[in-house]
Amino acid sequence: MPKHVLTTRVEWGETDAAGIVYYPNYFWWFDKASHELLRSLGLPPRDLSERQGILLPILSAHCDFRAPLRYDDALTVTSRIGEVKRRSFQILHTVCTGDSVTGEGYEWRAWVRQDGAGLHAVMIPEQVRQLFGNRE
Amino acid sequence: MPKHVLTTRVEWGETDAAGIVYYPNYFWWFDKASHELLRSLGLPPRDLSERQGILLPILSAHCDFRAPLRYDDALTVTSRIGEVKRRSFQILHTVCTGDSVTGEGYEWRAWVRQDGAGLHAVMIPEQVRQLFGNRE
Amino acid sequence: MPKHVLTTRVEWGETDAAGIVYYPNYFWWFDKASHELLRSLGLPPRDLSERQGILLPILSAHCDFRAPLRYDDALTVTSRIGEVKRRSFQILHTVCTGDSVTGEGYEWRAWVRQDGAGLHAVMIPEQVRQLFGNRE
Amino acid sequence: MPKHVLTTRVEWGETDAAGIVYYPNYFWWFDKASHELLRSLGLPPRDLSERQGILLPILSAHCDFRAPLRYDDALTVTSRIGEVKRRSFQILHTVCTGDSVTGEGYEWRAWVRQDGAGLHAVMIPEQVRQLFGNRE
Repeated sequence: MPKHVLTTRVEWGETDAAGIVYYPNYFWWFDKASHELLRSLGLPPRDLSERQGILLPILSAHCDFRAPLRYDDALTVTSRIGEVKRRSFQILHTVCTGDSVTGEGYEWRAWVRQDGAGLHAVMIPEQVRQLFGNRE
Repeated sequence: MPKHVLTTRVEWGETDAAGIVYYPNYFWWFDKASHELLRSLGLPPRDLSERQGILLPILSAHCDFRAPLRYDDALTVTSRIGEVKRRSFQILHTVCTGDSVTGEGYEWRAWVRQDGAGLHAVMIPEQVRQLFGNRE
Repeated sequence: MPKHVLTTRVEWGETDAAGIVYYPNYFWWFDKASHELLRSLGLPPRDLSERQGILLPILSAHCDFRAPLRYDDALTVTSRIGEVKRRSFQILHTVCTGDSVTGEGYEWRAWVRQDGAGLHAVMIPEQVRQLFGNRE
Repeated sequence: MPKHVLTTRVEWGETDAAGIVYYPNYFWWFDKASHELLRSLGLPPRDLSERQGILLPILSAHCDFRAPLRYDDALTVTSRIGEVKRRSFQILHTVCTGDSVTGEGYEWRAWVRQDGAGLHAVMIPEQVRQLFGNRE
């Protein structure tokens, strides 16, 4: 399965009143990491949207938090394609600092076409399924 | 079960490049709504932290997204206590605009004491369990 | 001069690693307060945009910070129209907790029409100037 | 004068309901860029804070906005030390996409010691002034 590693660190403003990362920032990282994963697969979301009218709206998001992160901690978000259904797919994310996993979760996203008739989920093209590593 | 309703609207900066709410904002609303629910139950997080050394760190968070929200949409976040375990509890959140549910999810939070020896999960006091509507 | 008072409190995630409000949040409050001020004047930005093709993009923003704000502090943002030029106007903002000013600043915004030919600054209509309290 | 260049791109969630960058994000970039500039000068804020009890709270922030940025636009934030006073200093920031300046501004920050007696502005050490490129 293809994967992507996003490297960043905890910014000054990403912590909460207890001095640890404010949890919604994990989902901000997940979204950013998903965009980078798709770019790395040759499927930049900007092109999908502007050239093909394809959007990838979120269907669900989940994260389990294992350990706190603090200001300036170096971290990686490792992302890979998980399950691939006909009209939706899953991206798995693992956040680590050093060898320690601090959180892991996923996003489910739809494959949606935007046209004159509005938004409607469509089949994920075979070519994309192959980029996603799906061998069915 | 006690519940709390947070009323707000989608701010100009809360949308994404497709013009709909950027999904991590749901978790921002969840966190804010949880703090308001706890205040409404007589358990303001500031007092818990400053007077008793109790923090309520996130263990997991989940949201299913049903429909898009756009700038200026009025919305409510209805929050209530879900499951209550010995050292953790769940808060359920439903986001609506008008009669339409746009997203629903939950947070699991630990009941944690911070003292000289660090952070450690402790039993949720019986008095708190009763405020949480737990009748076991 | 018309003014508007936004009442809120510092959220758990709005503080930084030093436990005080992360300063970009002041500008988030300014933007939200400006939208509320415009709504209170009968100029809701959503209608301006959808019905008239008018956008109010930011030209400059400034804030002087006087005192720190911490989690759960109650605060007000008092906003009023400042200078009004032909194609732009200023909104003044003062942030207080209790009687203490913690920050004050301003935004300059253009009055811009979006049409087939793109975006271009246009004259602020006389009717709007009067709502802005301009007596020239 | 020493300078630092931060390279990033506009994220999916950084735009507003008009599809351009939500302006408070400029200040988020400024803060991140300042931290990187200080690290590049051998003055990492984490060490200043943890080892020396030195914080650099914001005194004022300003930005002039020249042109809109949209999702996925590549951008640089070029930061350098501006004026240096006895107990405060200025950081200048210029945001560009390609050859075009989209915004420029500054932050004034205090040099503050945190100890048992609270927070108080102190003289910027001579060694730091030299790192800041001040030749007086």
